Amino acid sequence: MDLQAFARFANELADLARAHTLAVDTAPRVLTNKAFTSAPFDPVTRDDRLAEAAMRSLILARFPDHAVSGEEGGRSGPEQAHYCWSLDPIDGTRSFICGLPSWTTLIALLEGGGPVLGLIDAPRLGQRYLAYGEKAVLITPQGETPLRTSECRTLADARFSTTDPFLFEGSEFDTFDRLRSKVKITRFGLDGYAYARLAAGTIDLVVESGLKAHDFNALIPVVRCAGGTIGDWWGADDFSRGAIIAAATDELYRKTVDTLAS
Amino acid sequence: MDLQAFARFANELADLARAHTLAVDTAPRVLTNKAFTSAPFDPVTRDDRLAEAAMRSLILARFPDHAVSGEEGGRSGPEQAHYCWSLDPIDGTRSFICGLPSWTTLIALLEGGGPVLGLIDAPRLGQRYLAYGEKAVLITPQGETPLRTSECRTLADARFSTTDPFLFEGSEFDTFDRLRSKVKITRFGLDGYAYARLAAGTIDLVVESGLKAHDFNALIPVVRCAGGTIGDWWGADDFSRGAIIAAATDELYRKTVDTLAS
Repeated sequence: MDLQAFARFANELADLARAHTLAVDTAPRVLTNKAFTSAPFDPVTRDDRLAEAAMRSLILARFPDHAVSGEEGGRSGPEQAHYCWSLDPIDGTRSFICGLPSWTTLIALLEGGGPVLGLIDAPRLGQRYLAYGEKAVLITPQGETPLRTSECRTLADARFSTTDPFLFEGSEFDTFDRLRSKVKITRFGLDGYAYARLAAGTIDLVVESGLKAHDFNALIPVVRCAGGTIGDWWGADDFSRGAIIAAATDELYRKTVDTLAS
Repeated sequence: MDLQAFARFANELADLARAHTLAVDTAPRVLTNKAFTSAPFDPVTRDDRLAEAAMRSLILARFPDHAVSGEEGGRSGPEQAHYCWSLDPIDGTRSFICGLPSWTTLIALLEGGGPVLGLIDAPRLGQRYLAYGEKAVLITPQGETPLRTSECRTLADARFSTTDPFLFEGSEFDTFDRLRSKVKITRFGLDGYAYARLAAGTIDLVVESGLKAHDFNALIPVVRCAGGTIGDWWGADDFSRGAIIAAATDELYRKTVDTLAS
């Protein structure tokens, strides 16, 4: 199968997740604290679990030789699978719980461990960001438009986003604060949606730490296929430490790496 | 004229503003720095000005004896007008510039200086929050639903929002940080939309400082008519200092005042 066929399937998965998440987006939430985290409040909604279970079942039925790695249900499928689907049914759970529209569903297809297809779905906004190969598009009810990052090359011009300034601890906070003082505009609390808007050219820079694989797998193809640069805080692309920079241009990425190192 | 007729007119004003703001929401922005501010970057878009001018003309044509006070164009109309329309065509300009959907148009009708009708329009989201007298409703393409704040009474349960933690200076930052450590979830960067979601029951507490009359006039009726409490940081309702608390319940408002004072 080629990537185009996998892209059609990724759209099916996203539609399925929407059926679960949108149905409850305005209803009261059942909240639980994840037992396995030390964070004081890490909300998971029942809807997260249901949406992920539904996607997992569909993958198992269609591609029994693929593995699945979901934020809620962990890994399933063949140990040595060539393909693996990475799923985060509700990225931005805090926004979801607060009735804000920027939460997303993240879907990535990994081939030999690396993401080759990324999908960021924003159901409440009717926006779907899809990327693979040479293609990066925004799909809305009005149609499909190509995604292209901005040409921003300097921090002074950058519209900058990070999810939570108070997630940066100790010297990381000072680093963040130095960066914040150099950029044009700072926005918070967008989670995966910030990378979608970076691909669409209205945000220029995203810097975050503490991301997990399910948080970043889908973002990598979307940013890269739209012409942007995504890598780690040290100028390489070891995402495993979860410290990530996404930038509209390679020049802006390099300048951000230098600023974080200084 | 009664408030219901004014409410119909407020809807007309919001429709008119939408025609300007939505048309350019995905296009590149023309940015200028306001000359009269000392802030390093206070973005005004051309669209702000056009939307406000259009609303001002419509008010002048329909109600020549009403005054108008707009964020961009200042005050116009009779000096001693009984009624005054308070307009902020794009509240959340930073979000607008970053292609984020939470910017709003704020419209209030003041009678003898006090707001008697408030409208918060979120054009990109297709949501309009309207309140006057006993009425508080969310209007969407799907219809009209009543607005009602949550029953949240404690900080520990509160979904808390503030626009920018770095707007708080000196001891205000420590105060904010103390509050942040007590609540359940913190969200940033929502501007007027936070108060709309408070009225809708999905955010419980908003605390801000430095607000101007155009920022808060429309919010007051929306929060109050939906059952919430809105007042100043000291337990009264002198909004002129721009230090504002909006809470889902009176109990939560009082506890927040106590926390800020301690």
